Amino acid sequence: MKILTLLGSTRKNGNSEFLAKKIVEGTDHTIVSIAETHIEPITDKRHTEEGFSPVGDDYEELVELMQTHDIFLFATPLYWYGMSGPMKNFFDRWSQYMRDERFNLKEEFKKKKAYVVITGGKDAKIKGLPLVQQFSYVFDFVGMEFEDYIIGKGVKPEEVKEDKLALEKAGMWNERFRR
Amino acid sequence: MKILTLLGSTRKNGNSEFLAKKIVEGTDHTIVSIAETHIEPITDKRHTEEGFSPVGDDYEELVELMQTHDIFLFATPLYWYGMSGPMKNFFDRWSQYMRDERFNLKEEFKKKKAYVVITGGKDAKIKGLPLVQQFSYVFDFVGMEFEDYIIGKGVKPEEVKEDKLALEKAGMWNERFRR
Amino acid sequence: MKILTLLGSTRKNGNSEFLAKKIVEGTDHTIVSIAETHIEPITDKRHTEEGFSPVGDDYEELVELMQTHDIFLFATPLYWYGMSGPMKNFFDRWSQYMRDERFNLKEEFKKKKAYVVITGGKDAKIKGLPLVQQFSYVFDFVGMEFEDYIIGKGVKPEEVKEDKLALEKAGMWNERFRR
Amino acid sequence: MKILTLLGSTRKNGNSEFLAKKIVEGTDHTIVSIAETHIEPITDKRHTEEGFSPVGDDYEELVELMQTHDIFLFATPLYWYGMSGPMKNFFDRWSQYMRDERFNLKEEFKKKKAYVVITGGKDAKIKGLPLVQQFSYVFDFVGMEFEDYIIGKGVKPEEVKEDKLALEKAGMWNERFRR
Repeated sequence: MKILTLLGSTRKNGNSEFLAKKIVEGTDHTIVSIAETHIEPITDKRHTEEGFSPVGDDYEELVELMQTHDIFLFATPLYWYGMSGPMKNFFDRWSQYMRDERFNLKEEFKKKKAYVVITGGKDAKIKGLPLVQQFSYVFDFVGMEFEDYIIGKGVKPEEVKEDKLALEKAGMWNERFRR
Repeated sequence: MKILTLLGSTRKNGNSEFLAKKIVEGTDHTIVSIAETHIEPITDKRHTEEGFSPVGDDYEELVELMQTHDIFLFATPLYWYGMSGPMKNFFDRWSQYMRDERFNLKEEFKKKKAYVVITGGKDAKIKGLPLVQQFSYVFDFVGMEFEDYIIGKGVKPEEVKEDKLALEKAGMWNERFRR
Repeated sequence: MKILTLLGSTRKNGNSEFLAKKIVEGTDHTIVSIAETHIEPITDKRHTEEGFSPVGDDYEELVELMQTHDIFLFATPLYWYGMSGPMKNFFDRWSQYMRDERFNLKEEFKKKKAYVVITGGKDAKIKGLPLVQQFSYVFDFVGMEFEDYIIGKGVKPEEVKEDKLALEKAGMWNERFRR
Repeated sequence: MKILTLLGSTRKNGNSEFLAKKIVEGTDHTIVSIAETHIEPITDKRHTEEGFSPVGDDYEELVELMQTHDIFLFATPLYWYGMSGPMKNFFDRWSQYMRDERFNLKEEFKKKKAYVVITGGKDAKIKGLPLVQQFSYVFDFVGMEFEDYIIGKGVKPEEVKEDKLALEKAGMWNERFRR
């Protein structure tokens, strides 16, 4: 059981990253900081004759990782009540690669399990809910199991270390993944 | 009364663009296709000593436009149940420019009015609701009035032309803006 | 095609009722004001050996109506950001009657189509969205098609008559139902 | 610091009640099972000349309790993706008593803190979110602090005892309340 951790933050060592690392500690996992990869926004060619064009960025490496891991852990700070822009661009490109016959993403996705970590201010546990719902619709659409989510309280560096419940839940997931 | 239309689509002449153009037709307006501008994702430096660094992209031109227009019309297709990645990067950068003392965005935003157009498939009128809620939280946060939204049905090119109610509402907004 | 209109308001001639009547005008329909019927809250006996007990209220007449109509139109004012209490009690009792072998509600529901009318203040078009989502989950659960919804602006008597768009949409539904 | 626990379930010793009791154990508190009180649905008279009429039910005792307690704990099973009907009727009547000059609910509410417990099936942690949002709008409207919420997994009797995280969170709240 291999875990692919996709970090959405544009800051190193932030709160969502802290929780994510705690969750995968001691497991067979790969961590990718999306903002440090080169990912182009999608160019929507779903309705053109020629279809999508190859893009010379890092996305195919991510496709490879998605295929070879069983669990996806998405960890993002709440930016303007949504996932970060780089993580959004990551998802948008699914539209391209789920249609790419060189890969088998459409079928692969149905076997994956998704976990979500969101961190933000005091009100994130309410105002982060539309993002949880969005994730839920996304995973439903591709047939991926949405196992669970954590909304942690943390804006300033290290702040999430005070959120006992988020740490507890992260620890429980970690325990489950280590079995 | 000047309208700034910000298009989120990565396709030319799509459904959200069609509605947006109908809405601003005959008014004093500017249309920007975000995906055609060069906008870097934010690099979160809110918690660093040095603060945000200047970015050599097109964002300052957009700041200028935001300052000189009264109404913002955000038009995006529903990509994975959210706004498009390029539009998300546009919002993320607000965190930088609302702190930039050369501009006065924080005060300016309180005087603006926001309108939102979302287009998507049959289920967008339900599964687009988290996005509407996200927009609502965003506008609340900056003190901008969220005037109204349209969720239009349109995925294939020109499809939204069949959505009579979306057209009707677009027409009403247009009438209001022309007065 | 017969329409069953279920009114949730506890006030006669309110805004949601006004829209609902406009929608069914000239069609084959039945209107029930839930608050004027005698409906007991559910007593949850799903996990008891004896199961649900008969209740001597008006509910079975409503079951009869649900079975003999094709379209359900739920019209409720937004009370505390939800449907009215009497309408909620109406739904809660589904848990009882979907298990009642004298009826065939479980199978019947899958053939029905649902429409929703909500009326409230200026912010209802945002703060009524959780209610729309709740309705959506309800209809999904029972396999009923959720055709569409209207969120009209109207609190004071007759106020919704100023909401041109709500009237327009009500008119479109009416036209569809009259065909 | 006195806690008023309002139970929404129509079943004795259910999962939401179990969590609620764990939360208030050893504190100065009052527990009311709403379904066991006599509460009439509201009759909306906001727009009549004569205003609301006195209702000969148990509501005034609840008003008294609301005035004399500092923290409100609302505990409800997820019935059809919302609070139970009896709890909804309880909230609907706020519209009446916040206008009743014999009481001072409007001012009192601003000093209270609210906690919410919801229990339901596996999907409650997603499909219970509109209810969390509804509670949030309710508390915002009356100026009450929405401190936190638990969505526990439990449908069959005693099932929530397996939801370690819900128990943990309940325990944390209890600790906080005992201080």
